[in-house]
Amino acid sequence: MRVYLARDLLQANQSNAHENRNILANNGTLMVNVMGSPGCGKTTLLQRTLQALTCYRVSVIVGDLYTSEDAEKLAPWCDKVLQINTEGACHLEAGQIGHLMVEENLLQSDILFVENIGNLVCPAEFDLGEDFRVALISVTEGNDKPRKYPLVFKGAAAALVTKKDLLPYCDFSSQELESDLRQINPELKVFQVSCKSGEGLEPWFKWIDRQLLAKKSLASS
Amino acid sequence: MRVYLARDLLQANQSNAHENRNILANNGTLMVNVMGSPGCGKTTLLQRTLQALTCYRVSVIVGDLYTSEDAEKLAPWCDKVLQINTEGACHLEAGQIGHLMVEENLLQSDILFVENIGNLVCPAEFDLGEDFRVALISVTEGNDKPRKYPLVFKGAAAALVTKKDLLPYCDFSSQELESDLRQINPELKVFQVSCKSGEGLEPWFKWIDRQLLAKKSLASS
Repeated sequence: MRVYLARDLLQANQSNAHENRNILANNGTLMVNVMGSPGCGKTTLLQRTLQALTCYRVSVIVGDLYTSEDAEKLAPWCDKVLQINTEGACHLEAGQIGHLMVEENLLQSDILFVENIGNLVCPAEFDLGEDFRVALISVTEGNDKPRKYPLVFKGAAAALVTKKDLLPYCDFSSQELESDLRQINPELKVFQVSCKSGEGLEPWFKWIDRQLLAKKSLASS
Repeated sequence: MRVYLARDLLQANQSNAHENRNILANNGTLMVNVMGSPGCGKTTLLQRTLQALTCYRVSVIVGDLYTSEDAEKLAPWCDKVLQINTEGACHLEAGQIGHLMVEENLLQSDILFVENIGNLVCPAEFDLGEDFRVALISVTEGNDKPRKYPLVFKGAAAALVTKKDLLPYCDFSSQELESDLRQINPELKVFQVSCKSGEGLEPWFKWIDRQLLAKKSLASS
């Protein structure tokens, strides 16, 4: 039996993440790591986003403990969707992503979205080699979440405040949330959206579009 | 520097949990481990529950990554509330609980609630020595969560479906949820509640009361 030290696994993950990032840069493929609590709306946001980005080749890797339900929901809207079942593990790792990127020709895509395991804690510790992270928080979770789980918001380029349509029924202070987010990560771009009504999604689509164009121009220079 | 193996830590946790369980049995103190996603309503449920159980001596240990906000919300309603800040770690461990039980005289309590870290994955793997576990799922998370995170529901004695007042605004099938829960854990007791309106809470209070009386009669026999 081989015994692995957590320390060694984290170091190995970092080295794999570094390699992923180099490969992605050479190909001009944008990788976006999408994180948030169970039920915060990661899959629904990706559905809407894929429907809006049909002019691009988009692939998705979906992390899930056991099922393939989320992948099935996304399949009609993208070039390729792959499911990683972690069989109980609480996060995705860079080696898993790198393996699929190469084996499954995901580098032909313009964008590769990774939907991480529904968990505000552990995924934040594992760099996947992504270009940037996106952290979701739904208004039904309460506006204290960034204070309680700061790491995931600290490492993100954008935060999406989801389920805005439920705002009238929740005790949720958008003002307090934005002030906390500014304190944790002053550079964070914040989008308030409802995937049900579509409200607020357009600026998010445009922002992703701009990130992709920036990446492409970097790769071709 | 000392390096710990994950395997050894899990074994140590199990041995500490066993010890906690023995100590609790000798004292007739009921320990309830409360688990669920970030924002599913663990603290609010505990607030309501403490307000209903004022005839008992009740203590609470609250696990949180960094803040003490939840503990402050519960303090007015119980004999003692203690905060464990895990500083980024994703679950509580039996050794932490055992240490506080003894150091802080929590065994004088009739009930000890433990509010675990907001996470549907990792806390389910760590036995704290509790009498039973309670798993929360809010209707805003979607009814697919037991299929996607079965372990936490498999190991629980009761599931509380929270935020029932938001049901009219969510795509949530209670029927599908209950069918999935029955398949994962046929013994699971399910309560549908709204901590906002108070609907459905009374049967939950009575159930906790019955568990406590059963424990007391075991301890005195």
